[in-house]
Amino acid sequence: MPIHDPTRIYATYFIETAYPLAEAATTMAGEQSTGTFLRVPGETDELRERFAARVESIAEKEPAQTASLPGSGTPKNWDGKRHTAEVTLSWPLHNIGPSLPNLLATVAGNLSELKPFSGLKLLDITLPPAFLTQYQGPQFGVAGTRKLTGVFNRPIIGTIIKPSIGQTPEATAQQVKTLAEAGIDFIKDDELQSDGPHCPFNTRVTAVIEVLNNHAARTGKRVMYAANITGDLDQMLSRLAHIEANHGTCAMVSMNSIGLPVMKIIRQHSHVAIHGHRNGWGMIGRSPAAGMSFVAFQKLWRLAGIDHTHVNGLRNKFCEPDGSVIASARACLTPMFPAPNKGCEVMPVFSSGQSARQAPDTYKALGTTDLIYACGGGIMGHPQGVAAGVMSLHQAWEAAAQNIPLSVYAETHRELKAALDLFGA
Amino acid sequence: MPIHDPTRIYATYFIETAYPLAEAATTMAGEQSTGTFLRVPGETDELRERFAARVESIAEKEPAQTASLPGSGTPKNWDGKRHTAEVTLSWPLHNIGPSLPNLLATVAGNLSELKPFSGLKLLDITLPPAFLTQYQGPQFGVAGTRKLTGVFNRPIIGTIIKPSIGQTPEATAQQVKTLAEAGIDFIKDDELQSDGPHCPFNTRVTAVIEVLNNHAARTGKRVMYAANITGDLDQMLSRLAHIEANHGTCAMVSMNSIGLPVMKIIRQHSHVAIHGHRNGWGMIGRSPAAGMSFVAFQKLWRLAGIDHTHVNGLRNKFCEPDGSVIASARACLTPMFPAPNKGCEVMPVFSSGQSARQAPDTYKALGTTDLIYACGGGIMGHPQGVAAGVMSLHQAWEAAAQNIPLSVYAETHRELKAALDLFGA
Repeated sequence: MPIHDPTRIYATYFIETAYPLAEAATTMAGEQSTGTFLRVPGETDELRERFAARVESIAEKEPAQTASLPGSGTPKNWDGKRHTAEVTLSWPLHNIGPSLPNLLATVAGNLSELKPFSGLKLLDITLPPAFLTQYQGPQFGVAGTRKLTGVFNRPIIGTIIKPSIGQTPEATAQQVKTLAEAGIDFIKDDELQSDGPHCPFNTRVTAVIEVLNNHAARTGKRVMYAANITGDLDQMLSRLAHIEANHGTCAMVSMNSIGLPVMKIIRQHSHVAIHGHRNGWGMIGRSPAAGMSFVAFQKLWRLAGIDHTHVNGLRNKFCEPDGSVIASARACLTPMFPAPNKGCEVMPVFSSGQSARQAPDTYKALGTTDLIYACGGGIMGHPQGVAAGVMSLHQAWEAAAQNIPLSVYAETHRELKAALDLFGA
Repeated sequence: MPIHDPTRIYATYFIETAYPLAEAATTMAGEQSTGTFLRVPGETDELRERFAARVESIAEKEPAQTASLPGSGTPKNWDGKRHTAEVTLSWPLHNIGPSLPNLLATVAGNLSELKPFSGLKLLDITLPPAFLTQYQGPQFGVAGTRKLTGVFNRPIIGTIIKPSIGQTPEATAQQVKTLAEAGIDFIKDDELQSDGPHCPFNTRVTAVIEVLNNHAARTGKRVMYAANITGDLDQMLSRLAHIEANHGTCAMVSMNSIGLPVMKIIRQHSHVAIHGHRNGWGMIGRSPAAGMSFVAFQKLWRLAGIDHTHVNGLRNKFCEPDGSVIASARACLTPMFPAPNKGCEVMPVFSSGQSARQAPDTYKALGTTDLIYACGGGIMGHPQGVAAGVMSLHQAWEAAAQNIPLSVYAETHRELKAALDLFGA
């Protein structure tokens, strides 16, 4: 991490503009601090000196051939060139104080609509450690999640209750029983499943955790169940209390559905790990020319208190390229603040079309097993059954950790062999 | 509004895909209800019948020349055609119940990352009236805001405290005094101004509202001040209470900063109008191929309880085209539910580079004066002073309502004439 002034907020953007880069960057800084479209009385030099955002750096990139987004303007006597760059701005913390909601309005507010830009995306943020006076960061993170699950030195193998929606609490508990007996470490609700009348949250959670408590009493192994508490705040707090009363160890939230201030409150009340589901992230993150990267996004939510978050996975069924997946996962595992502050590291969750086949590349790219590796069809669809599905993933990660090709390891491991036959090597 | 089954949720999308449209739409419906990438045990026909999302309609549009977003897939033996369409899906309400956070995960969750799509944007939603059992909708809306301000039969003329950030509470109150004496109806904080150490919320609000209370006692006119309460929930509730204790009439929130569940709580507690600032909307709304339209977005927030929201303005300084501005404003004024349910209409706020010159076109396009017309430089930059700035806007709207060309009306109205000379006709 480069050295930053701990009294300033930094944000780095991709920009695409027909205007000279320095002029465009100055417009961003002005709009997001002291400026308006006409200089007004009161905007003194002294005031600007104390409160204006500063352009810290401009790194020019390859020009764009066409405008990525519609509606932008062009300067008089335009030379036809559409510049792109990575621009870093900074703001004095005292403009807003350590407040995540107000940070958003400052670094991710009106500037994405500014006329000079045919593309503008927030790529990264660096925050003053003073934010730690207002936000607690993750309670469990990587080490705490390992302790709660008793899984060390390998990925936490997880799965998702499927079908996504429509099962009764009893059928859900039965599926969880099968999965627990199959050796799974972690089970989560689908994000579409919450508290519908056909599968009420409390009934489902009581039934599921009873199965897991019995399993733990019998085997000593405590499977983590991320029950989806997403809802209005009173509902979320009561669902969280229900999980805790049943001795559950995890609650899931849809981050885009609840907002940062509610996440802060859930973190304050929770005694269990918080699984931050990022559904809807594609709306703000998928376009290279608009919105916000996941590298920036996850920092906001880590500070607010999530312990895990989703990063897709290699060769996923979505549109995210592998490089972006790995960059997101690495970001989750990188401290947010210089020591001796809290680093707020969280556990990346690999999911979406994952099976045994992606384990070696995932390990190679990430260099650690500090992750949750979640497979749906990759476990439930295994031809030898669910236990073999889980086993095939253990074998794949053993092979990955020992740098043995999957096809070689599969010669002596029949569950892995069947998985590779089904999903491809 | 077409007739909808009141037990179902409807969502309309723009899609762009290399796959046959029917297949692509079925993929969306499957991913957002019962499906996974392999058919799993438990996904029975009966379960699918009760819980699966339904493709209601597909209206094909002109094909796209290139992929709007990266990362999408193409079918085997692709014919090279990239289809676009407006697709409407529906879900049974009982999948999630009337819950805005869970609605988001359903209609605006993972589907924006689905592989078959090189473009996917949520355009509109239609909700069952059952949502009114959980959400209160606007407390004041158009009629209530007119009553609080005492402004009828013309737009509410508003302005923004500028510079955006950096003024002391005393300087802010002094500016408010000038504006009130100039005849303004409505004043709002900039969204960058919240509770920084240089301008603490409570001190600022006490000073500003004292000015406005004195003004009201002297003139009978109560100017509305939308004080930016955006922050963490405890802060927002305490700031709201401070506004009410001082007899203020409005609180402003940055919607994207706080999230829907917090908005619901603020609505429950508030006795003042809620001004919903949409900063950051460009991140999800500006791209034609990703995210969410403002028509869909504002429905979520109206239900949660805002009374006003921003729609930019004609010929604004941002990138939004005029057609989109007017569509957003009309949507704010259109009932969300069929009578006799609450319609939840809210007051659109026109702002961004507005001055006297846009009044006639705005009136012509909207056909009503039920709006807040907010000008920054358009008032503060008037060459004859602030009162003349406000007066020029009254004159412009008088001319618009009587269908008299601004240039003609300006011949006998010197403030309007000066505004047109400065800002162009």
